[in-house]
Amino acid sequence: MDTAALWQRYQDWLYYHEGLNFYLDVSRIRFDDAFVEAMQPQLEKAFKDMDALEKGAIANPDENRMVGHYWLRDPDLAPSPEIRQEIISTLEEIEAFTAKVHSSAMHPPGSFKFTDIISIGIGGSALGPQFVSEAIAPLSPPMVLHFIDNTDPAGIDATLTRLQDRLDRTLVLVISKSGGTPETRNGMSEVKKAYESQNLNFAPHAVAITGRDSNLDQLAKSEGWLARFPMYDWIGGRTSEMSAVGLLPAALQGINIREILAGAKEMDAATRIHDIKKNPAALLALSWYFTGNGKGEKDMVVLPYKDSLLLFSRYLQQLVMESLGKEKDLDGNTVHQGIAVYGNKGSTDQHAYVQQLREGVANFFATLIEVLEDRKGTSPEIEPGVTSGDYLSGLLQGTRKALYENHRDSITLTIPQVSPKTVGALIALYERAVGLYGFLINVNAYHQPGVEAGKKAAAAILDLQKRVMEVLQEADAPMPLTVVAQKAGATEEIEAIYKILRHLQANKRHVVLQGNIGEPSSLMVSAS
Amino acid sequence: MDTAALWQRYQDWLYYHEGLNFYLDVSRIRFDDAFVEAMQPQLEKAFKDMDALEKGAIANPDENRMVGHYWLRDPDLAPSPEIRQEIISTLEEIEAFTAKVHSSAMHPPGSFKFTDIISIGIGGSALGPQFVSEAIAPLSPPMVLHFIDNTDPAGIDATLTRLQDRLDRTLVLVISKSGGTPETRNGMSEVKKAYESQNLNFAPHAVAITGRDSNLDQLAKSEGWLARFPMYDWIGGRTSEMSAVGLLPAALQGINIREILAGAKEMDAATRIHDIKKNPAALLALSWYFTGNGKGEKDMVVLPYKDSLLLFSRYLQQLVMESLGKEKDLDGNTVHQGIAVYGNKGSTDQHAYVQQLREGVANFFATLIEVLEDRKGTSPEIEPGVTSGDYLSGLLQGTRKALYENHRDSITLTIPQVSPKTVGALIALYERAVGLYGFLINVNAYHQPGVEAGKKAAAAILDLQKRVMEVLQEADAPMPLTVVAQKAGATEEIEAIYKILRHLQANKRHVVLQGNIGEPSSLMVSAS
Repeated sequence: MDTAALWQRYQDWLYYHEGLNFYLDVSRIRFDDAFVEAMQPQLEKAFKDMDALEKGAIANPDENRMVGHYWLRDPDLAPSPEIRQEIISTLEEIEAFTAKVHSSAMHPPGSFKFTDIISIGIGGSALGPQFVSEAIAPLSPPMVLHFIDNTDPAGIDATLTRLQDRLDRTLVLVISKSGGTPETRNGMSEVKKAYESQNLNFAPHAVAITGRDSNLDQLAKSEGWLARFPMYDWIGGRTSEMSAVGLLPAALQGINIREILAGAKEMDAATRIHDIKKNPAALLALSWYFTGNGKGEKDMVVLPYKDSLLLFSRYLQQLVMESLGKEKDLDGNTVHQGIAVYGNKGSTDQHAYVQQLREGVANFFATLIEVLEDRKGTSPEIEPGVTSGDYLSGLLQGTRKALYENHRDSITLTIPQVSPKTVGALIALYERAVGLYGFLINVNAYHQPGVEAGKKAAAAILDLQKRVMEVLQEADAPMPLTVVAQKAGATEEIEAIYKILRHLQANKRHVVLQGNIGEPSSLMVSAS
Repeated sequence: MDTAALWQRYQDWLYYHEGLNFYLDVSRIRFDDAFVEAMQPQLEKAFKDMDALEKGAIANPDENRMVGHYWLRDPDLAPSPEIRQEIISTLEEIEAFTAKVHSSAMHPPGSFKFTDIISIGIGGSALGPQFVSEAIAPLSPPMVLHFIDNTDPAGIDATLTRLQDRLDRTLVLVISKSGGTPETRNGMSEVKKAYESQNLNFAPHAVAITGRDSNLDQLAKSEGWLARFPMYDWIGGRTSEMSAVGLLPAALQGINIREILAGAKEMDAATRIHDIKKNPAALLALSWYFTGNGKGEKDMVVLPYKDSLLLFSRYLQQLVMESLGKEKDLDGNTVHQGIAVYGNKGSTDQHAYVQQLREGVANFFATLIEVLEDRKGTSPEIEPGVTSGDYLSGLLQGTRKALYENHRDSITLTIPQVSPKTVGALIALYERAVGLYGFLINVNAYHQPGVEAGKKAAAAILDLQKRVMEVLQEADAPMPLTVVAQKAGATEEIEAIYKILRHLQANKRHVVLQGNIGEPSSLMVSAS
């Protein structure tokens, strides 16, 4: 395509939203008019399916649930007055709670005010708050947010060590929709012990964000925690940023959560339009479908040219891959769907893996994010007439052009600045694009059967560990692994047993392995 | 394969290094003996090529350079007494400098001691120090390390705002091999201005790590900076962690750099062996070759089950993708090689994209990293007989098993703990595996032509910006974009001009755009 035709294509496809000052450019995705026309019926159907979803249809059939994250930013759209009221009340409670904490009206028993927050949650209970905090928390926030997002003992220790002198001034958010996520339960248990070891009462520091009447909710109630906020049945973890899960930590950090919601609401309205060229989420879904042939044949590389958006790709990794990465479609066919997502930030990544993007395996499309405002205030000149931000801008343009010339397609999003409003809009845009794409490929984008399977597999290993320890404690002499496995009724699981024992021994957990640890058949095992 | 056969395969292929207490398991990569036999001649050749490289052959023919990062941890292997002595002296200078800074023998003009470090560098000058800091810096380090790794004005402001009260106690490392990296130069320029704005003299805070006689080296010399450390011609950015680039910031944070070097040296010795089963780097290269058909057809997903190894995947992204992601092979054939790398950490990612790994597009192989030691000290029991670390361990095992059962291959690395020694060993292992794989696929793994091209493309945009501003300043009336382009002698570049102007306007840089900003053809442009 010559440059004049390409310039025309750019203008023809450029999407601009005046209220959000938001641009979307899909001109460097190489679809043609015939493709768009062919996709029209599927897109029409996706628009209608999305309308039904927003009106409260069961869009997550496996779990028999409605999908309502769009209602969070426009409660008037909720399918019942009860849900509408619940959304409004929760938002007011978040703001009231935040005001009390910030004003020190609510403070810990032995201190004048709360200064820090530990957020204990994983997956959808962590990725949104982490992205939002990195993107738009003030540089000097009223409270500093820390995360425990794993069941790694050393990681928990790192956070608790950093906060050891401030636990008495720390608010602990425990976030789990089901109230039974093991990693979160473990983190809470260890944090509680840290409070006890300092003779501090945990309950006046603790806040639960969880489904009504979950185990966690009941625990918080019975122990008299400081507060409880609801997670709704009709919100999934990966779309929970605008529920209490995301809004409470954001508000506590001094972020304007009404602006996040306003940005999302405005984007939601824009992405309800049944017209491809006027709907940026449809443009994204269409572009993804084209590049990956509707089967995820290309990875989505996300490159925001702005440090504060570093975690956007990790947020999208969950939103996109957990929603779309499915074995079966809604008709039960085996499809192995999904789109792989990765990325960090530009121009930094141009000094790393962008070498491969430009020249290597052509197994991806890029999503470049441009932020028009370089900084608050004016920039010094680095060279006559040129600022650091001009370099950043030039590097983005140069990379996009070079990728295109090397037949690597790209999408470019442009936002005026990184603010609560634009962050809300970005989240809403991708939630909708993922939803529409899910309809296009006919998968349930709102469940995660593999995550449940992972928990079960781990539970089986923990069960095996218990049986192995019983066998060893009952034995009167060292045994080879084969005998341990036999006695534990797990002859199929020798390898798992070897690994369990290696892990226990490394942590001085009453296991003795004699022989060459790297040669399993040589080992004789006993309890110590 | 039945479980007995699989257990036999596990034992047959299990690699164990006693000195490092390091395990590598490739049993879940589905190659067979015929494949290994077929690869034997290529591997033999790769081993020999690697021997020659280590002895000082020109292994980077495009840049006519030796490749010597292996010498850094065993200077006796250096090809000349001069290089050997240079390595030893630099290491001693790093330690002497660190001792003086830590003891306050060397301190800033107006303060008793240095408390913080800003490291200004990008790509290979940042990713290693970031990974190492996150992995093994003490929780209470003698100095706190901050990074400016981009030319993002807002990102620079964020770092400088955090440090605004401590600039007088901050040491600034400026790291650029060529001494001319624009992002690094811009960061330095802005940091310098921040010092000037506080009436602080920059030179007594500044340290250069750069090639001898580079622009940066000359600047540091002429301005009398606190110190200068060398980068060698025979070290590439992405393999520079064990040169001054990585060792100086590590030492300043209180990390035992001799242990990093010792771990790497031990791994280097292990990966020199000309026998696949006894060489863990060869096992990795072989596995990568098998899964991706020697063409990078599968992505490498890196999942360390340990919070402190979070940045390992980002480090590997550069090491692997920048080394292997090449258009041409060494014979000039067009090959579009590489392996895409991404990942964060387990079990956190199991609540995110692992859903897709388990069930979705089968376009990857996983690399799981197990750390045997859960934490320093003992763990509380979460349930009878079960700790948080047992969950982490069980989740790793469960995921590996489920992936395998769903025909997704995986590699598992096991290290005893995250320490300077094991981090050194991991880096050395992957440096060697990438080198061997590079020989297998016959690419130059030590240059990065695309990075240079990216800089040139950006320079062209900056040049265009200057011409556009000249045109606007000379004009006496607003013009449409087409006329601006014509007058700037850039009729092919209207789109770039539109974006340049949009960016300048957003930053109040003396440009007026009248019309609908989202409709380029409607715009009339003038200078203000």
